[in-house]
Amino acid sequence: MTDFDPAKIKVIGFDADDTLWVNEPFYRETEAKFCHLLSGYGSAGDINRALYRVETGNLDLYGYGNKAFMLSLIETAIEVSGGEVTSAGIARIIELGKQQISTHNPLLPGVPGVLALISRHYRLIVATKGDLLDQERKLRNSGISGFFHHVEIMSDKTEKHYRRLLHHLDVHPGEFLMVGNSLRSDVLPVLALGGYAIHVPFQVTWQHEEVHPDEMPGGHFFTVDTLEEILPILGLEVR
Amino acid sequence: MTDFDPAKIKVIGFDADDTLWVNEPFYRETEAKFCHLLSGYGSAGDINRALYRVETGNLDLYGYGNKAFMLSLIETAIEVSGGEVTSAGIARIIELGKQQISTHNPLLPGVPGVLALISRHYRLIVATKGDLLDQERKLRNSGISGFFHHVEIMSDKTEKHYRRLLHHLDVHPGEFLMVGNSLRSDVLPVLALGGYAIHVPFQVTWQHEEVHPDEMPGGHFFTVDTLEEILPILGLEVR
Repeated sequence: MTDFDPAKIKVIGFDADDTLWVNEPFYRETEAKFCHLLSGYGSAGDINRALYRVETGNLDLYGYGNKAFMLSLIETAIEVSGGEVTSAGIARIIELGKQQISTHNPLLPGVPGVLALISRHYRLIVATKGDLLDQERKLRNSGISGFFHHVEIMSDKTEKHYRRLLHHLDVHPGEFLMVGNSLRSDVLPVLALGGYAIHVPFQVTWQHEEVHPDEMPGGHFFTVDTLEEILPILGLEVR
Repeated sequence: MTDFDPAKIKVIGFDADDTLWVNEPFYRETEAKFCHLLSGYGSAGDINRALYRVETGNLDLYGYGNKAFMLSLIETAIEVSGGEVTSAGIARIIELGKQQISTHNPLLPGVPGVLALISRHYRLIVATKGDLLDQERKLRNSGISGFFHHVEIMSDKTEKHYRRLLHHLDVHPGEFLMVGNSLRSDVLPVLALGGYAIHVPFQVTWQHEEVHPDEMPGGHFFTVDTLEEILPILGLEVR
């Protein structure tokens, strides 16, 4: 990313789930409990495949986040059980969803220190999909909300949505840097607009966010292993 | 509102549901179908009371909007039926919810004309609770999105949330005017911060939004019958 000049950046957007804090593993945990609950009706593989089909089918209608997930779990349970799931089973699914919403999402290593340093030099925002209320709750619980100017909830993270975000933030693409764990949502669309991106891969990625090697972007972004590694890219160092 | 000077206003926030377009009656329609579906387990009055209790109990966890409503409908169905509701019944509730999400919300009278005129003089935003995706969809379907700078989804509409909104918009309370149908959500908190508000009552108000006469604010806001009446308040007139 040879043309990158950190002095030109005005706003840095941070993805939240699995970039600032652990999130996807809690979905996987709920899915495992869900498959166990329905184990009389199919293998975990079959049930997870059905769930993914229902989730993607509902994406236009529900969007992202815990509530969309819960509604798709219920719909999947009815489907894979051929209508045999009991209302006690549905009640249990609602309970699993509520537990997941109430989960305290632990911060990823180094996050507070990195944000404390960067926030002295740049305006930081959280730019995330999902439910506003959930993301606000996670941010409040995390203790790092003071480092961010505000939270931007995006109904999706396509070029169109980032274009709207930049308009709203009143910055040009070349003044915007996005940091996140998803190539599809945090990197590709931002690069396509002429902005900058840093990819911080996370251990688990939701199938929907996976990118085929053919879609991989060219050289105009950085990939780092941990959030601390974005400091030298921005010309900052922990003393 | 004798101290009101429209020349000082920089941003006008519009509530969306039942201020720009019809919304609450569709909830009432879904509730009526829901009560009919469960009529073997109680009167419509009893079922609606149970639903309201479940909804308000879930508010901290789910927030506002269609998906929260759907999850509370399902929970209420299980509760009022004593667990006897079948998975076909639950599937029917999901279908009702999806129908409601897909509803085209008709604009209230005069809305496009009023916005066309006001948007030439002020920066307009939509400031609303509910699901981001739903509100974006309604705005897109409405054909009036071009009049707004952007959409602000608020997880709630208390003083705290408006304070955050004004910070985010970079305006002082005295530069902000809120227009909406809910005294509780659109008028009271904005006045408390020192901002201005215009109340445009709608025919139907969700119980949760109702304000006790003792809580009624003083004279620092206008009440109008239709959106057109805000034009003279802003010193504008349709030619």
